[in-house]
Amino acid sequence: MVKQVRAARTRQALIRAAAEAFAHDGYARASLPAISKRAGVSAGALHFHFPSKDALAGEIESAAARTVEEMTERCRSTDGSALGVLVAGIRQLVVAFAADPVMRAGFTLGGDPGRDGGATVLESWHGWVRDVVVQAQQAGELTEGLSPDCVAGAVVAATVGFEVLGSRERDWLSKERMVEFWTCLLPRLATVPGGDLARVLEAEPTGDRGTETTMAGL
Amino acid sequence: MVKQVRAARTRQALIRAAAEAFAHDGYARASLPAISKRAGVSAGALHFHFPSKDALAGEIESAAARTVEEMTERCRSTDGSALGVLVAGIRQLVVAFAADPVMRAGFTLGGDPGRDGGATVLESWHGWVRDVVVQAQQAGELTEGLSPDCVAGAVVAATVGFEVLGSRERDWLSKERMVEFWTCLLPRLATVPGGDLARVLEAEPTGDRGTETTMAGL
Repeated sequence: MVKQVRAARTRQALIRAAAEAFAHDGYARASLPAISKRAGVSAGALHFHFPSKDALAGEIESAAARTVEEMTERCRSTDGSALGVLVAGIRQLVVAFAADPVMRAGFTLGGDPGRDGGATVLESWHGWVRDVVVQAQQAGELTEGLSPDCVAGAVVAATVGFEVLGSRERDWLSKERMVEFWTCLLPRLATVPGGDLARVLEAEPTGDRGTETTMAGL
Repeated sequence: MVKQVRAARTRQALIRAAAEAFAHDGYARASLPAISKRAGVSAGALHFHFPSKDALAGEIESAAARTVEEMTERCRSTDGSALGVLVAGIRQLVVAFAADPVMRAGFTLGGDPGRDGGATVLESWHGWVRDVVVQAQQAGELTEGLSPDCVAGAVVAATVGFEVLGSRERDWLSKERMVEFWTCLLPRLATVPGGDLARVLEAEPTGDRGTETTMAGL
């Protein structure tokens, strides 16, 4: 049992170290020896858990996609307006970007030309955003004349853009910047008053599981 | 003279081939032999023009930054509303992304973790967008309560996001998608009527130099 716990910890340390190395050096440049050194484990331990760099990257993408799904699943299960659910989801993504190297690497690997395939996290995020925006439209929350595809595209492109810009200049991912950005943008897209959106965005996440606040919960 | 023309052509072919290779394989994976082969020149000719892969990447970033400056300089020199100038600039960037691998690679290299430094194109684009948005605010064109930094951040993050998403799935950079996106978003940010913005976005670029259309020109 102790052995299993240790193995799980080593695995987690390797995933985290690989995520940091990929984000810092890019997939192609990051080396397995550097990753095992960063994780504080032997090369043999690395190879026991992951046969290749591709396997590590795949695990990071799966982990990030799972986080997106769990995160958005929680947003979906709370009640309140669809736009409120979208805001809560964006807020959670921003918190996760700032706090979790695995999430950052999961998104970055999807756009890293040094690696083939693997846009699963992006697809998962885009699919969820589109679903929620369609729900918002059906509930009459979207500003008249706006297409859900367009709003979803704007949200996804902006979140991806912030992640890329944030990898160069951390300030792009700061809470202040995010609150300012979405508070200014979202009220233009929705009939929900801007003040409430700002309060949802500014709310601190509750515990490790991130914020579950919705518009209705305030 | 003939020799100089040929040398300039070889140089251009190498820059284009390198841009395509970087966009396709990422900076770290792209190899000099593959680039010279793609350009149809010898390894010796490549080394005569560019001593290293870094020199090639630097040349691409400089070329893309020059294109952004020339493009935006032309937008700035025409008259019309500041928001119209911004729309024309975005339109030109989109056309350039779709048509010019050097522009795409210039932006991608700025966010490629496989390469250090080199966010010049992004900085140049961000600086211009911010200037124009500030002018729009001073001219009373911005929707009340919107901060110029926020609007500029939204435009830059979205353009970067579209480029990243477009490198995976070309449809993100299609003209239809771009027109839909900016037509839906910009009227929310500005007091200028949406119909005119749509016409500027839909206008075909004139010749190789891209569209010089502004709101006032319609």
